[in-house]
Amino acid sequence: MPADLVTIPARRGKAARVRSGQRIRIVNTHGTQVVDTWAFSAQDGTEWMAMDASRAWFLKLRAAVGDTFLTNRRRPILTLVEDTSGGAHDTLMAACDLERYGLLGVVGHHDNCRDNLHAALAELGVSIPATPAPLNLFMNIPWTPDGRLSWAEPVSTPRSYVVLRAEMDLVIAFSACPQDILPINGRMGGTTEAHFAVE
Amino acid sequence: MPADLVTIPARRGKAARVRSGQRIRIVNTHGTQVVDTWAFSAQDGTEWMAMDASRAWFLKLRAAVGDTFLTNRRRPILTLVEDTSGGAHDTLMAACDLERYGLLGVVGHHDNCRDNLHAALAELGVSIPATPAPLNLFMNIPWTPDGRLSWAEPVSTPRSYVVLRAEMDLVIAFSACPQDILPINGRMGGTTEAHFAVE
Repeated sequence: MPADLVTIPARRGKAARVRSGQRIRIVNTHGTQVVDTWAFSAQDGTEWMAMDASRAWFLKLRAAVGDTFLTNRRRPILTLVEDTSGGAHDTLMAACDLERYGLLGVVGHHDNCRDNLHAALAELGVSIPATPAPLNLFMNIPWTPDGRLSWAEPVSTPRSYVVLRAEMDLVIAFSACPQDILPINGRMGGTTEAHFAVE
Repeated sequence: MPADLVTIPARRGKAARVRSGQRIRIVNTHGTQVVDTWAFSAQDGTEWMAMDASRAWFLKLRAAVGDTFLTNRRRPILTLVEDTSGGAHDTLMAACDLERYGLLGVVGHHDNCRDNLHAALAELGVSIPATPAPLNLFMNIPWTPDGRLSWAEPVSTPRSYVVLRAEMDLVIAFSACPQDILPINGRMGGTTEAHFAVE
């Protein structure tokens, strides 16, 4: 594994600063790990990658190679430029949070992507006023013709990856999703680390 | 038309305070008007109806009668209890804003749902730190099996309506969408008033 890979620890978050034009490679190291992904303008933490604005731009439930994500001010922020993972990336579902685990029957603490996001940003000194809807890389949410959704197992494989190109100076944040009740991280519920590199 | 109906003026917004258990009837008076809809906890403007959390709860692209929308803290806020409009209500697309009209070729001002939301809330003395993804009542966004989306004409008819039941004390906000470039408000692009009543 190249030395410049940064670890997103299992069940934890990690953020990084990226310059416009750089490429971010996100590697599904063990093959079945969902990576919730957010991006924010480096100049203004209230401008973020917005799934609702992005779907209205590329007119798909899922982005494919060549599609560009927009911010909540309709500016290009990230473009999906490579994908060896099978293309199942979700734009529909909220990041997991403590209240979500409560609805799933968990009592007390559970690691969660919302807290991971804010903790990862705090390490960079960044604070944001809300939790945007994430791009859930490697998360497989199929839909039926009548619009029913389900939580499915990943189709990604070990060391598969996506590459995103930064369209502005930005802060990117990841969470190795700690969901171990639904099968989104594989039926074994094994939540693992993942890796990324800024190139 | 009953005297207690409140007008959502054409191309403008309107908000109201609603108590838990009350029902809000939203009438598509002229039949083809999209009504962007938001709801906020009466106690805390940072808790709002969240499309990403709601989809993860009812597991559909579109809510149907009986489905409950959740807030960004996973609490029930509104339940869809009646619908005579044909059921095409969008949860996927961002509210229109000035930047969106810029991408569509508009130079200068254009009425837009984002500004309507914030203006309507300001009339009630409510301020919020972001623009949540809206529930786009009467907005028809079909999807294909491979996930492509399109802007279609409404299937609703004059005087058709939906009824939402409030599951907490809340502030509800509407915008009679001023979109007159895409066909979402009918192929004639005629943006009209709509009405609502709190029952």
